[in-house]
Amino acid sequence: MRISELSRRSAVPTATIKYYLREGLLPAGRLTSATQAQYDESHLSRLRLIRALVGPGGLSIATVRSVLAAIDDPPESPLELLGRATEVLSASSGGDGGSDGGEDPVGRRTVAGLGWSIAPGSAALGELAAALAAIDEAQLTLLEGGVVRYAGLIHELAVEEVATVPDDSPEAAVRQVVLGTVLIEPLIVALRRLALQDAAARRFGGAERGGQSCRV
Amino acid sequence: MRISELSRRSAVPTATIKYYLREGLLPAGRLTSATQAQYDESHLSRLRLIRALVGPGGLSIATVRSVLAAIDDPPESPLELLGRATEVLSASSGGDGGSDGGEDPVGRRTVAGLGWSIAPGSAALGELAAALAAIDEAQLTLLEGGVVRYAGLIHELAVEEVATVPDDSPEAAVRQVVLGTVLIEPLIVALRRLALQDAAARRFGGAERGGQSCRV
Repeated sequence: MRISELSRRSAVPTATIKYYLREGLLPAGRLTSATQAQYDESHLSRLRLIRALVGPGGLSIATVRSVLAAIDDPPESPLELLGRATEVLSASSGGDGGSDGGEDPVGRRTVAGLGWSIAPGSAALGELAAALAAIDEAQLTLLEGGVVRYAGLIHELAVEEVATVPDDSPEAAVRQVVLGTVLIEPLIVALRRLALQDAAARRFGGAERGGQSCRV
Repeated sequence: MRISELSRRSAVPTATIKYYLREGLLPAGRLTSATQAQYDESHLSRLRLIRALVGPGGLSIATVRSVLAAIDDPPESPLELLGRATEVLSASSGGDGGSDGGEDPVGRRTVAGLGWSIAPGSAALGELAAALAAIDEAQLTLLEGGVVRYAGLIHELAVEEVATVPDDSPEAAVRQVVLGTVLIEPLIVALRRLALQDAAARRFGGAERGGQSCRV
């Protein structure tokens, strides 16, 4: 198909498609003349992936490029591949917590206490330490059980999520992990905000105000 | 105490404290001369709260101002207060999804399906719809049970979290809700990334590579 049809089918403006081509996110089409190129279904699928990553995924063009590189040229071991994908995402989230790439000792102690196996230097250790420091600084009351309670439920989900990762195709595996990480985080955050609103309505809303503003 | 001691005890530079004073985030001190003011423990505690919100909380100065206003002048009903706090946070997260303040029909249908009571026009409905649209667009395989599975676990946590909210002091209640929302989100995200790494190490790491790069 020509770029105009690619644009129509993907609902992405032609100028944006050309930008992705220039940035190397989308592979060039097959030239059919000096000024015309043909695109196929693989371009359409790649374009949809890019849109999901830059849109609600909220990744920068540079991060999307790294993610796509990991998908296109995956390392041999699935574990290494998953590690690389999560590292790219952690680096992009702006959380460092640790200094100059060294790993965070508080984060490391916390995951050791949970019995989790985390590769050395994982950026998410710094994110964890920063989150804990902020909670501590704000003197926020955590749930009974604290971090362990959250970690237990989240780990339960993570095991189920990793079980859905295909082990026969590295490309499919990294796609599932990257998209799972990037796209499910906003889902969890949105669900949590809504769940808190519902839980608050149940606790505080019933008797005193007739609940008129909070029942669907 | 003088501003220099406030700076020392809070580890916030004097220039930054003056910026917060100018922006109205921190109440003025008690003037003791034309050029000197005295600060007390309430200033120190407020300063720590501001740092937690702008730092790992990642809120803008404008959002912090709205949050502090809700804390300082809470509405009468705890529910209204909690609603206002979560709305401020939802608005600040940049997610809209819906158009011009109207609520999102996809988000509304989803929470109705879950049986959740959500106030009309909640911004988190738009965030939910945007997250679902991205997952759909990327053709991401969700867990068995899909959104309902995530929603169930998250709601379980939310009920426990709301139970920790004090109902005798509106200021304490909004503080707990706002900080819980802002500061626990990064904790959940970091724990999830680490849990995925651990789950991946368990599934893929053992036999083939001796796990040397992933065991603590």
